[in-house]
Amino acid sequence: MTDLALAVFAAETGAHLVEEPRERRFERFRRGFDEASYKERLAARGLRFVGREESGYPTRLRELHDPPPGLFVRGDAAVELLREPAVAIVGARACSSYGSQVARLLGRELAAAGLVVLSGLARGVDGEAHRGALDAGGPTVAVLGCGIDRDYPAAHAQLAARIGGRGLVISEYAPGVEPAPWRFPARNRVIAGLASATIVVEARDRSGALITADFALEAGREVFAVPGEITSGLSAGTNALLRLGATPLTRAEDVLEALGVEAPATALPELGETAACVLAALAEEAAGADQLVRGTGLDAASVATALAELELAGLVAEAEGLYRGVRPQG
Amino acid sequence: MTDLALAVFAAETGAHLVEEPRERRFERFRRGFDEASYKERLAARGLRFVGREESGYPTRLRELHDPPPGLFVRGDAAVELLREPAVAIVGARACSSYGSQVARLLGRELAAAGLVVLSGLARGVDGEAHRGALDAGGPTVAVLGCGIDRDYPAAHAQLAARIGGRGLVISEYAPGVEPAPWRFPARNRVIAGLASATIVVEARDRSGALITADFALEAGREVFAVPGEITSGLSAGTNALLRLGATPLTRAEDVLEALGVEAPATALPELGETAACVLAALAEEAAGADQLVRGTGLDAASVATALAELELAGLVAEAEGLYRGVRPQG
Repeated sequence: MTDLALAVFAAETGAHLVEEPRERRFERFRRGFDEASYKERLAARGLRFVGREESGYPTRLRELHDPPPGLFVRGDAAVELLREPAVAIVGARACSSYGSQVARLLGRELAAAGLVVLSGLARGVDGEAHRGALDAGGPTVAVLGCGIDRDYPAAHAQLAARIGGRGLVISEYAPGVEPAPWRFPARNRVIAGLASATIVVEARDRSGALITADFALEAGREVFAVPGEITSGLSAGTNALLRLGATPLTRAEDVLEALGVEAPATALPELGETAACVLAALAEEAAGADQLVRGTGLDAASVATALAELELAGLVAEAEGLYRGVRPQG
Repeated sequence: MTDLALAVFAAETGAHLVEEPRERRFERFRRGFDEASYKERLAARGLRFVGREESGYPTRLRELHDPPPGLFVRGDAAVELLREPAVAIVGARACSSYGSQVARLLGRELAAAGLVVLSGLARGVDGEAHRGALDAGGPTVAVLGCGIDRDYPAAHAQLAARIGGRGLVISEYAPGVEPAPWRFPARNRVIAGLASATIVVEARDRSGALITADFALEAGREVFAVPGEITSGLSAGTNALLRLGATPLTRAEDVLEALGVEAPATALPELGETAACVLAALAEEAAGADQLVRGTGLDAASVATALAELELAGLVAEAEGLYRGVRPQG
């Protein structure tokens, strides 16, 4: 079994290797490579490796034409988590408040329905999707584009720890591999390959998330795009995906239906009359507090109380003073 | 020729008639109907009638399985305007600022490309689509759901006059017919029937605009839906149309390409550095002035001047203190 040797050789030479290279240099490396002691060192750092030949290797990933030789893994969940029904939620790093709210909502609702939420630990949509899944108490999996020992971006080190506490952080790259731009498309193929369906929440034209969508299509997996305003550059990529035939995602149930997963029964929380009135106003359009005061005829204090109640209930999200109903009432 | 008699009989009896009724009552009415003097009375009020048997009757409307017996017409344009390439732009009456801005933008750009913009004179999306076409100096056609002598809604009387000054206001209903809820779906079939393509800008679930889209599909015409935020109830109908296979409209050029119309060369106006910077910030996401000050690092006065410049250039629209770039820069 040379999967681990291949992965470590790739890390040391900076190459992206899927097959054993027919090089003397690799032959020499393999003969000198002490797999047992390498694995011990991994274990000492709380890391594992699952090779392409091992039974634990994720089934869906094996279907790719270029599956990674193996995955480095950290976190508390069993590696079999990667064989559970899973969806990838990806999108812009510098996303809008709409993008981050929808990513979080989808992460939460899809995790609540029992799906594993996969993403890339990046800022913006990725991070919010992971957070949403964690909100729902579900396991989530972060796929890194750098060595398994790195938290990238560093600002998400704490998020990575939370993800590892319930799910997994994985990478095809051995410890020590630096993040490099060319590795991110390769990482995106792993995200798309592990997922039964890929959801693009918000993406610019020529965004990396569109590469993930391409990989998903290539692997014969379903691609969903979240519609957004045509006046927003951050929805240019997602709306273009819709033009190319991606399935429009308008609520978490669209994904569950496509994957044949039963939607969990969710009781809407009991709302006071004022909160219900404010929620109804927000079903039309995102609005600021002032606008809600004018629109509902309620006084400012009542609107503020109602908004706090709705945020706590997870029915409304706020960003930059703009409130948005995150469970459309149809 | 009994088309006019049929239309007038329908008006007097309150019936919706497409074919001659096999009723004694109609026979009697027809024998007593003085077409020449009725037409004189129409002409005295600045009204015309074009019957289904006449050569001026719009070709596309004749293709419906239930074309109206004729159209009552007012306005300065020749009735042949109804045979020109035309698009319907329809949507919610109580639309959001996004809906009204997009309707106006599409009305303006499609009219500038030489298409006749059709709509229903209603508040919200309809009115903005007409206004956009008028902004571009193009002819636009309003199709009424009441008698040709009525301006409905009354608040749009002045808009109707402006439409008639360059285009046409038309109705299948004779003078004196009151607006009634059941006539609006029938009116929507005329809008869809006259158009080569129907665009739904913003629509709730079960909105009248979706009926127009159904008629368009039934007549084998293309239907475009403008994507919107999935957290907005006002985009629930349009996003549902996308799910059902409508073509996503992300810019006016999508429609022009589908209809084989050449896009006019549009030179973007020269912008100052500050305005260009504010416009770039708005390409991301709609924002308030305060948010733009924080995002761009410019001072409040510069941002205000830039916004005024961009609004004048038609590149940015404002509603409720929220500025939106209405020509996405991709």
